[in-house]
Amino acid sequence: MKFAGVHLLVDLWDATNLADPDLIDRTLREAALAAGATILHSHFHHFTPNGGVSGVVVLAESHISIHTWPERDFAAVDIFMCGACDPHLAIPVMQRTFQALRVDLDEQRRGRIG
Amino acid sequence: MKFAGVHLLVDLWDATNLADPDLIDRTLREAALAAGATILHSHFHHFTPNGGVSGVVVLAESHISIHTWPERDFAAVDIFMCGACDPHLAIPVMQRTFQALRVDLDEQRRGRIG
Repeated sequence: MKFAGVHLLVDLWDATNLADPDLIDRTLREAALAAGATILHSHFHHFTPNGGVSGVVVLAESHISIHTWPERDFAAVDIFMCGACDPHLAIPVMQRTFQALRVDLDEQRRGRIG
Repeated sequence: MKFAGVHLLVDLWDATNLADPDLIDRTLREAALAAGATILHSHFHHFTPNGGVSGVVVLAESHISIHTWPERDFAAVDIFMCGACDPHLAIPVMQRTFQALRVDLDEQRRGRIG
């Protein structure tokens, strides 16, 4: 079985630090590097009035995105990486910042061949 | 069952127009509007030498991303939308540009409560 990349969908529950776009930007960049990825671009948007953050880090090996709902202590992350990266290595870096009490992880193989 | 948003993972096979970042940017923006979303930011990167494109449209209602492999006629798209948007409405707009002969669609409910 060959495939183009691994796509992790990560739901973070009872999490903290979900309303600080600079911290979230730094965390996702550090998570990308921990996974062995190369950062091309990042953009984060801070919503008012709820304080939620939406953003993405575009990688040479695909992307990491996050959308946070601070009022629910919830964040939805996806980590899509191809090549030699290991997207699972991004998760502990995020957990150091977000300290989610529950992490729901779904793993998809994108572009399966054969 | 309540949830934060619908996340579609769309694999496009035997597709065309996968190496033109401006066309892909326009297509994803049009697709976002067709789904009822509000565009906040977009960024597209053109890889050399294979011509592949990676990019994202950040939305008030989450994001659309794409990663293309022109040498395989393959693209991996994800469409994550919360609120009143219908992410399924983005797909026909993409199909007008990419004309994939096969579309593999996976639908995830993110942030399920109860």
